[in-house]
Amino acid sequence: MTIFQKIIDGEIPCYRIYEDDYVLAFLDIAPLSIGHTLVVPKEPIASLHELSLEGGAALGTALIKISSAIVKATGISSYNILQNNGVIANQAVSHVHFHIIPKPNVEEGLNISWAVKELNNPESLANAIQEAL
Amino acid sequence: MTIFQKIIDGEIPCYRIYEDDYVLAFLDIAPLSIGHTLVVPKEPIASLHELSLEGGAALGTALIKISSAIVKATGISSYNILQNNGVIANQAVSHVHFHIIPKPNVEEGLNISWAVKELNNPESLANAIQEAL
Repeated sequence: MTIFQKIIDGEIPCYRIYEDDYVLAFLDIAPLSIGHTLVVPKEPIASLHELSLEGGAALGTALIKISSAIVKATGISSYNILQNNGVIANQAVSHVHFHIIPKPNVEEGLNISWAVKELNNPESLANAIQEAL
Repeated sequence: MTIFQKIIDGEIPCYRIYEDDYVLAFLDIAPLSIGHTLVVPKEPIASLHELSLEGGAALGTALIKISSAIVKATGISSYNILQNNGVIANQAVSHVHFHIIPKPNVEEGLNISWAVKELNNPESLANAIQEAL
């Protein structure tokens, strides 16, 4: 059982921000910046692509409500939303979670590097993804 | 008018992957890794917290459908989802867009740095965000 499941079950406390039937949101206790919040579906699913569509819709709605509240409460209008799937992709807890990370200045918050590659065979790639839908 | 609005309007072509009433998804022409896809709401909104809740629900559903198809088509099950708001937060186009970025190995895909801060006054912060909901 992951730490997020224990938080959802009330076995471990959290600084709760939002809750509905599908979603729980709380402050990250190791924040990158003030207001750094985790938005977690209640379904015990490790990766986003395995989540139910209902869970996805609830998460999308919650992200808007909560990011709006964070902007209002912190006064910081710039922020990053990050959701990691797989240990190699920096997923630290095997339960889907979205980070909302305010970006108050260049140093604090999320910092990323962006190493662009060539786009090879885009038509066949787009077709392959379409066919997998 | 942003380049994404021109793509939505069909004035600029794209390698289309998915479309519904609210959302368009297409390959990023400057990918970080194979399968790097942009998921864009059709509403001409710059930041996620200003989007409609219907748009948010549609985006959440589309992210699941499309990430699942990318995993199937590429065979890469690790990936990052990133959505940037504000120039300081690396937003390059002023129209909401989610990146789905496959992570095939340590070098390719999204690389992030994670500089954790102290969590100060968490109860009053959580209360302030709750009150702004």
